[in-house]
Amino acid sequence: MKLIIGNKNYSSWSLRGWLAAKQSGISFEELTVHIDGDDWQAMKRQQDEFQPSAGKVPVLWDGDVVVWDSMAIMEYLADKVGRDRFWPKDDAARGMARAMVAEMHSSYLPLRRLCPMNIRRSIPIELTDDAKADIIRILGLWAEARARFGKGGPFLFGTFGAADIFYAPIVSRFITYGIGVPGFAQAYMQAIWEHEWMQAWIAAAEAEEWTISAFEVPVDA
Amino acid sequence: MKLIIGNKNYSSWSLRGWLAAKQSGISFEELTVHIDGDDWQAMKRQQDEFQPSAGKVPVLWDGDVVVWDSMAIMEYLADKVGRDRFWPKDDAARGMARAMVAEMHSSYLPLRRLCPMNIRRSIPIELTDDAKADIIRILGLWAEARARFGKGGPFLFGTFGAADIFYAPIVSRFITYGIGVPGFAQAYMQAIWEHEWMQAWIAAAEAEEWTISAFEVPVDA
Repeated sequence: MKLIIGNKNYSSWSLRGWLAAKQSGISFEELTVHIDGDDWQAMKRQQDEFQPSAGKVPVLWDGDVVVWDSMAIMEYLADKVGRDRFWPKDDAARGMARAMVAEMHSSYLPLRRLCPMNIRRSIPIELTDDAKADIIRILGLWAEARARFGKGGPFLFGTFGAADIFYAPIVSRFITYGIGVPGFAQAYMQAIWEHEWMQAWIAAAEAEEWTISAFEVPVDA
Repeated sequence: MKLIIGNKNYSSWSLRGWLAAKQSGISFEELTVHIDGDDWQAMKRQQDEFQPSAGKVPVLWDGDVVVWDSMAIMEYLADKVGRDRFWPKDDAARGMARAMVAEMHSSYLPLRRLCPMNIRRSIPIELTDDAKADIIRILGLWAEARARFGKGGPFLFGTFGAADIFYAPIVSRFITYGIGVPGFAQAYMQAIWEHEWMQAWIAAAEAEEWTISAFEVPVDA
């Protein structure tokens, strides 16, 4: 199994696909392409030839199976190793986790645009009203998940799973952009940040030498 | 089981949730709320009180389980009735179907904004370059799915399933906005349009008396 990902510092969707691959327990080869460089262009050309439907990161190659999009990759892996490794067993918890993951997948554009993931830099930022609304919504979902279903551990639904994989890049943004959050959220964010896979990803992001100016928000923005 | 949906003429995400509920084979009560009217405001208030995490349509209520977002609703139902009712059994087909559904869930904003679903009206439209790029991408995905995995029937992966549920509102747009497509796509679109559930939805949309001006593109646009 091979996972193609973008720059670890910037590619939030790659982080989700990578955490999903880790969570599957299947060993995989990891190929990082510089999403602003020549190898990125070469990969897109190669994919266009081999498989017209795949032209983005992350992409999972599993033998002759090609899956793109972090959500589809996670579900494909859940098909392979069993749903319980990713999703809560309880119907109500799983229903909410599925809804939260789907909402993350299609929403929060104002926050995502204002605060692109940038693991290396700590940048205080002035929030727009739209971004604030996204943050309030996310904190509300986290609070409800933790209160109703989080008894079994420090993660959204207790043990680490699909919802944590999808909200991990949000945790990164809240930390690096200095966004103030209530205590329950701080505790959750700390659990994510200290997770060994996150620590490994962060170390790799810090070691990268690529800088993409489009994702570097000025400090005085 | 109860499914809350918006106006059938306009609400493309409701159509996806509703088709998913039909596909599950579980009988369900259907509650349509006028997404521009007083009952919509009342429903949002009621949901805010009862369940802070649900404020959109479609919403599925299954006993005490509340699931919002058409993707999450479909997966929750697939958990309930078995994956095979929604997804191809073959790994490569399922990997592609999952990727196509995820892409539909998060992409094609230019097309969706230019051509809001409007089942009642036939409106020729001048396409923007961004919308054209979306259409080309969608036709490419349909072509690949049909060619590689569509042998067993007229739908994207042969028999009617998750990918068809997610692309059905695109079929509606291609038809009502008069978008020219190649023959293989015409055949696929006809199969979707003639499906008994689509015919039932279309008839209900035509019977609705609500008009929402924000979704009514002028004929000379």
